[in-house]
Amino acid sequence: MLYPGLTPLDLIGPLQVMCGLETVEAMFGVQPRHHVVVVAEQVDDVPTDTPVRIAAPTLLDEVPEPDVVVVPGGGAPTLRQLTNPALLDYLRQVDRSAEVVASVCTGSLLLAGAGLLQGRRATTHWAYHRFLDRLGATYVPQRWVEDGRYLTGAGVSAGIDAALRLAARLTSDDLARAVQLGIEYDPHPPHGGIDWSGVDRDMLAERVQAVAEQALGADPTMLARLLG
Amino acid sequence: MLYPGLTPLDLIGPLQVMCGLETVEAMFGVQPRHHVVVVAEQVDDVPTDTPVRIAAPTLLDEVPEPDVVVVPGGGAPTLRQLTNPALLDYLRQVDRSAEVVASVCTGSLLLAGAGLLQGRRATTHWAYHRFLDRLGATYVPQRWVEDGRYLTGAGVSAGIDAALRLAARLTSDDLARAVQLGIEYDPHPPHGGIDWSGVDRDMLAERVQAVAEQALGADPTMLARLLG
Repeated sequence: MLYPGLTPLDLIGPLQVMCGLETVEAMFGVQPRHHVVVVAEQVDDVPTDTPVRIAAPTLLDEVPEPDVVVVPGGGAPTLRQLTNPALLDYLRQVDRSAEVVASVCTGSLLLAGAGLLQGRRATTHWAYHRFLDRLGATYVPQRWVEDGRYLTGAGVSAGIDAALRLAARLTSDDLARAVQLGIEYDPHPPHGGIDWSGVDRDMLAERVQAVAEQALGADPTMLARLLG
Repeated sequence: MLYPGLTPLDLIGPLQVMCGLETVEAMFGVQPRHHVVVVAEQVDDVPTDTPVRIAAPTLLDEVPEPDVVVVPGGGAPTLRQLTNPALLDYLRQVDRSAEVVASVCTGSLLLAGAGLLQGRRATTHWAYHRFLDRLGATYVPQRWVEDGRYLTGAGVSAGIDAALRLAARLTSDDLARAVQLGIEYDPHPPHGGIDWSGVDRDMLAERVQAVAEQALGADPTMLARLLG
């Protein structure tokens, strides 16, 4: 799914993986179990946190019972969705039938805001970890976290890893590996991985508080809940 | 830049990195040297090789002399751009002033088709490596390849790594690392990296030939050039 203002890599990473799964299923003559759709409240293009706009071709109402849902994240616009009953109601509705409920980055705050992660282990963008806890989940600092039907990915780029895990879960390790080869996902960050021993996950606390205040000024109750 | 039918991760990976660079420059009080724009032949949204459509806000003509250009790739629709004089002319034009000319995946075939990679070391999606050679470049099987002003990335997801390298080149290693932390790029593919010893880069030769025939049926000269 998508919504206005999201971080597009949160959406496009998993989307490219899941569309790759359709491609390799066709190549290998495997009967496809799933079909990828992208849903939104509107089919017009919406802004993102980059210069491009993105349009989903399908409305939320057209896919009331998906087998899998993936919720992308973002900054203030994502927190603003915590006060959007249409989106939260949709998440509660699909949760009743979905085999896997997934998120990338702060998308997990929307799952938690919909009440789906109560008491569950989950992850989110490192800078937003306290918001996840305050919405009733337990933050786990991993690339992705699986707790039953819930698969949550860490910040932004983690959606690629989480989606490859999702592809394996829905099909097989072999097909997931073929998707990985198709998108040539053999990562080599020029400066190596992140050295977490040098990262204080609260170092942006003031900044994310300002993001929350910007997003939720009109909803003091939700704002107080996030700020603890 | 974008064009109809592209692989969106080729665009969005580098775009998220370069927009992240703007963010960390602002956080660190660094005078920004660059501003990110996304250009296309049209400002209407265009299809991608996934269900979403993407719209660039800016026309090619509005940015005649960018400091950096990044060209994304894709399948048949990308090869079709090899016969689009407007796009190839734009690439030749920006090449005259650009400090860095970059590509992701088969985007390098467009740089080569515009005549910019003659005799240069470059990379592309592994399955398309012979097309790159036949367009006058020398394929190098690396995550990204730098030859003078030309920075080419391997398939699809490699755009993230190549863009972090670009960010470091334009600013500093420290700022590139801050961008990496911002997009939480600490990759952990669930099945590890790609084991290239088990990959025959010609194993999809028939498939990519069919892609070329589909794309370039109307231009037998270009088709013959690609198929060698």
